[in-house]
Amino acid sequence: MMRAWMLPAGCDGFDKLFLKDDVPDPTPGYGEVVVAPRAWSINYRDFAVASGQYFGGVLKADAVPLSDGAGEVVALGEGVTGLAVGDRVQSSFFPHWVEGPARMGPALGDGTGAGMLAERVVLPASGVVPMARTLDFAQAACLPCAGVTAWNALCEGGRPVQAGDTVLVLGSGGVSTIAMAIARASGARVIATSSSDDKLARLRELGASETVNYREIPDWGAHVKQAFGGADKVVEVGGTGTLGQSFAALGFSGEVALIGVLSHGEPPSPHALMMVGGTLRGIFVGSAAMARKLNAAIDANGIKPAIGRRFAFEDAPAAYAHAWSSDSFGKTVIELR
Amino acid sequence: MMRAWMLPAGCDGFDKLFLKDDVPDPTPGYGEVVVAPRAWSINYRDFAVASGQYFGGVLKADAVPLSDGAGEVVALGEGVTGLAVGDRVQSSFFPHWVEGPARMGPALGDGTGAGMLAERVVLPASGVVPMARTLDFAQAACLPCAGVTAWNALCEGGRPVQAGDTVLVLGSGGVSTIAMAIARASGARVIATSSSDDKLARLRELGASETVNYREIPDWGAHVKQAFGGADKVVEVGGTGTLGQSFAALGFSGEVALIGVLSHGEPPSPHALMMVGGTLRGIFVGSAAMARKLNAAIDANGIKPAIGRRFAFEDAPAAYAHAWSSDSFGKTVIELR
Amino acid sequence: MMRAWMLPAGCDGFDKLFLKDDVPDPTPGYGEVVVAPRAWSINYRDFAVASGQYFGGVLKADAVPLSDGAGEVVALGEGVTGLAVGDRVQSSFFPHWVEGPARMGPALGDGTGAGMLAERVVLPASGVVPMARTLDFAQAACLPCAGVTAWNALCEGGRPVQAGDTVLVLGSGGVSTIAMAIARASGARVIATSSSDDKLARLRELGASETVNYREIPDWGAHVKQAFGGADKVVEVGGTGTLGQSFAALGFSGEVALIGVLSHGEPPSPHALMMVGGTLRGIFVGSAAMARKLNAAIDANGIKPAIGRRFAFEDAPAAYAHAWSSDSFGKTVIELR
Amino acid sequence: MMRAWMLPAGCDGFDKLFLKDDVPDPTPGYGEVVVAPRAWSINYRDFAVASGQYFGGVLKADAVPLSDGAGEVVALGEGVTGLAVGDRVQSSFFPHWVEGPARMGPALGDGTGAGMLAERVVLPASGVVPMARTLDFAQAACLPCAGVTAWNALCEGGRPVQAGDTVLVLGSGGVSTIAMAIARASGARVIATSSSDDKLARLRELGASETVNYREIPDWGAHVKQAFGGADKVVEVGGTGTLGQSFAALGFSGEVALIGVLSHGEPPSPHALMMVGGTLRGIFVGSAAMARKLNAAIDANGIKPAIGRRFAFEDAPAAYAHAWSSDSFGKTVIELR
Repeated sequence: MMRAWMLPAGCDGFDKLFLKDDVPDPTPGYGEVVVAPRAWSINYRDFAVASGQYFGGVLKADAVPLSDGAGEVVALGEGVTGLAVGDRVQSSFFPHWVEGPARMGPALGDGTGAGMLAERVVLPASGVVPMARTLDFAQAACLPCAGVTAWNALCEGGRPVQAGDTVLVLGSGGVSTIAMAIARASGARVIATSSSDDKLARLRELGASETVNYREIPDWGAHVKQAFGGADKVVEVGGTGTLGQSFAALGFSGEVALIGVLSHGEPPSPHALMMVGGTLRGIFVGSAAMARKLNAAIDANGIKPAIGRRFAFEDAPAAYAHAWSSDSFGKTVIELR
Repeated sequence: MMRAWMLPAGCDGFDKLFLKDDVPDPTPGYGEVVVAPRAWSINYRDFAVASGQYFGGVLKADAVPLSDGAGEVVALGEGVTGLAVGDRVQSSFFPHWVEGPARMGPALGDGTGAGMLAERVVLPASGVVPMARTLDFAQAACLPCAGVTAWNALCEGGRPVQAGDTVLVLGSGGVSTIAMAIARASGARVIATSSSDDKLARLRELGASETVNYREIPDWGAHVKQAFGGADKVVEVGGTGTLGQSFAALGFSGEVALIGVLSHGEPPSPHALMMVGGTLRGIFVGSAAMARKLNAAIDANGIKPAIGRRFAFEDAPAAYAHAWSSDSFGKTVIELR
Repeated sequence: MMRAWMLPAGCDGFDKLFLKDDVPDPTPGYGEVVVAPRAWSINYRDFAVASGQYFGGVLKADAVPLSDGAGEVVALGEGVTGLAVGDRVQSSFFPHWVEGPARMGPALGDGTGAGMLAERVVLPASGVVPMARTLDFAQAACLPCAGVTAWNALCEGGRPVQAGDTVLVLGSGGVSTIAMAIARASGARVIATSSSDDKLARLRELGASETVNYREIPDWGAHVKQAFGGADKVVEVGGTGTLGQSFAALGFSGEVALIGVLSHGEPPSPHALMMVGGTLRGIFVGSAAMARKLNAAIDANGIKPAIGRRFAFEDAPAAYAHAWSSDSFGKTVIELR
Repeated sequence: MMRAWMLPAGCDGFDKLFLKDDVPDPTPGYGEVVVAPRAWSINYRDFAVASGQYFGGVLKADAVPLSDGAGEVVALGEGVTGLAVGDRVQSSFFPHWVEGPARMGPALGDGTGAGMLAERVVLPASGVVPMARTLDFAQAACLPCAGVTAWNALCEGGRPVQAGDTVLVLGSGGVSTIAMAIARASGARVIATSSSDDKLARLRELGASETVNYREIPDWGAHVKQAFGGADKVVEVGGTGTLGQSFAALGFSGEVALIGVLSHGEPPSPHALMMVGGTLRGIFVGSAAMARKLNAAIDANGIKPAIGRRFAFEDAPAAYAHAWSSDSFGKTVIELR
């Protein structure tokens, strides 16, 4: 038997989380492994799942939440090669998107299949990724959704980031802080925005060379263009409410990586893209191959995901509450203590 | 002295075009050439210029219209190399965008500088392009705006068209018909839309393997996705009014090339791009280098731009009127007879 | 029981082929399928395998030869999705290279594992590819090695072929003839070489716009550069003996796709690559994903692999002998009659 | 009148350098500027020019040597825009290769036209590049040949370096040291080779995470592959004598950037490229656009070219002698004091 946090069928918010302590231990099928997570992290989409507003809608059955976990392999199914019991691994958001172009498919913790917030999880072997050698479980648990999203946004597609580029990141959440670290490691200059001067100071400590308080400068898009020459990449975690500003910030041949669903509002006209020959690229996390490349970059550059606060497994609801609050910065982590 | 068609200062429509027959003959400066056009073509943007709705707004002074012309070099300024009197050349929409990434700048016929609809025009040597060997003046005159736009949309950027791709073109205008020819020459399957079954029949003759009457199938985007597996490229000449359907038509990792300002309406949410890892790329014509590549493709494949109707130089206003009408198909050409 | 052609342990030539008629019928494991080939084709490497000169050296045990076959799925193992009994499929040269960057691994018919020249073959489901809809079994059987190699050479890597490019193909073998078809379908101009004027005439019929008899013009590399402006792509099936000429034929930023091991001789200095900013790219067949893209291109463009001669399954040794002779043109096919 | 160092017609070595002090002051033509260099650097090719072994062969007339200089604009010809007197600029190796794909053409200091080792030089405006804001003249003078070559090798072509890649640099010369800095700024892990443990220690200080003494490990190529997993990029400054080892060091889909003419020997067979799907790319410095991107990367990352020793303008021959000796490390600079 093992413990797992679960969201009930019909769930309308993360306050409905409950801990079930008599879940049968999973056994791996052909090509599968059992992973015992030691740490987890929470992403924005996990709130959407909990409130029944994710792609699958209201939960039809009790479901284990979360896509992000890191731990050890504790059992191997038949036919598994390249992995051994004891390997330190992290989950892969889309367990069946191993490599190649975008394809999506079922995602961990989407309410319809496996979720990570349990003591043991069965995963396809192709859907686990060896942890970066230089990270601990808590740090590696920050990566499956936010880290791979940031890597995809910056390092994949038709215009990967290069040394000397200017990268604009919005806010201080999990995607933005790891994107900043990847951009800095790639030799880019980073401009970061926030409405809090305190957070801007922390972002400068983390490597931002320029910061913009978007409350003080509501036209921050045009400001970025005029003061800093325009962005080659915008990591757009906001959504339709900020997209117009992101377009305005873009330099010639620049790319807005569209990640966000945080803000709402009328979508802006995309005609600004024509004036700079720019692109808007839809990002939906990424593949296991991207996670491997991210981990190589982490090991080569000593990147450490920014962890705001940590909570015990037993306090998962408090972790959710913190991640949802305006106090959160970087990633909120749950760990087995 | 020479003749030139002109739009008057404050012009509010192409019916104000007037023919001036005592324009001084131009002389080339350092690095410039004089071109004597033999044929011209009209683009949608020429109506915007004439009605004072282009980027520069209402014309501040009389101006020669049109970006597109093809003819012969008749005089060379100092320091010009690689061109000789008698060379058959076409204009370049952005005369100073020779090659490399997007940069735009002043465009021919935008009402603020040189325009092509005259008997002789001074152009920077870098802003003329040798005609495709297999085209005549009228055919070459179809290319500077519509042809290069179509080339840029299909063959540049992060995801150039490849044999076996599916390309969706909207309508039967100048950009769409040349895009169809380029796509076919590149080995792609082409799906074309129109509201006229007659035009759809002509598009099938020109190489479309599938056609969709968008009046009969208002949800043509979803239809393209279901019936044909989704588009790898959409040549989006419509604008905000059709963009939502174009997003819906897109397959995984596909690209919508955003060209159009024809239709209006609320911009759609771009979130559909996230679900397919797709991109929206802003296209604003292209460089002289792109024109040269297009011409090589034309010569290698026997591509002929689709010319709907031809008018004499003296009948330029009638050419404008035809191009503006719903009878037009492909390019409307003006020629010296 | 089933029949299979086999090479004996220690085999030193294809004349040692023997037909075994009491091979146990294979059963598929988890994730595997059984394919019943209807047609096969022979590649140059199959001679190397038969003579003990392939990567694995002299055969250590009896082995079924050939990598290339097309037929029907006749049985499914557990866990197979996306395939059904009766599906028309072709083999994949590297059954475990599904997609993504180069990785190679064990190849069909390399003498160490499965080979295709049998009445039934067990393959991993990921290692079979649905046939192009417009091809029959014999045509599809031409593609797994030669077709995918040609696709990889032309359409993958850092400089995929585009309409208007100039492509140089050497000789009239299986790779060169399918490469010519792909290049033409992609809108390229094709230059072909041979020492036989008869074969050059056949190559012009197949789409070559220029041909060079390399016996008459020993410096055919420089000739291609001077007469035709240089090649953007060379499909180099020759090897070290022709590589110097291929370098000389290359235009600025062109690419030589290195496939060949046919000719021998001192490797040339690669410094010619510096003078044109060119690349030499090593090609070793390709992935199942490339095969799928090739098949889409075939269906969209009516490409038919050039089949020189066909032999019955029972006459496999005669097929080998023909493919080895100087009479062969395009692909030599074996089929079940 | 001004001073210029010159190589005499028929020159057979840099010991023939002579200082001419009555060279007429240059005046700029249309589109040209006059630059007064404050610092210069020496490249390997400058020895080839001096000994009559560069592409043009033995000098036909007295010529000013060197491609690399940095200084101030002191006069503008007609038609120059975007530059002003007093601007801090560096030379561009190929003054007419502004941007776009490889094209080469006449190079500064090649013995047939302008060279930089003079008090004032006339250059086309498009052939000067604004200095990186964070460099002084001596540092900027290190870049036109070696720096742009390193940038082209690592950051252009079909496989630009990314964070997490493994880059192998050979030796401690000018190209290798700046390549190491660019690779580190781009987030790559760097492996460096030398025959001197002292130099290896200095390379580790400059950012190499792994070093290999190629005298102790003659099979350093295979060693790099086994011990470090293979290189994604090799900056091959050696030439045919080291190329075989570079091929052996290459990982899957890796690229050898071919720069070098330092070592001689039989060219190795390129078949190793086939086994890893690797490429060999010929590098011949690069364009002004690449220099601008390099300078942006330098400013964003605080890169400082490694300067081994500095000499006064009057001691140019001593600078040549030092650069030629085995004591040299990084770049040898000449400066106006």
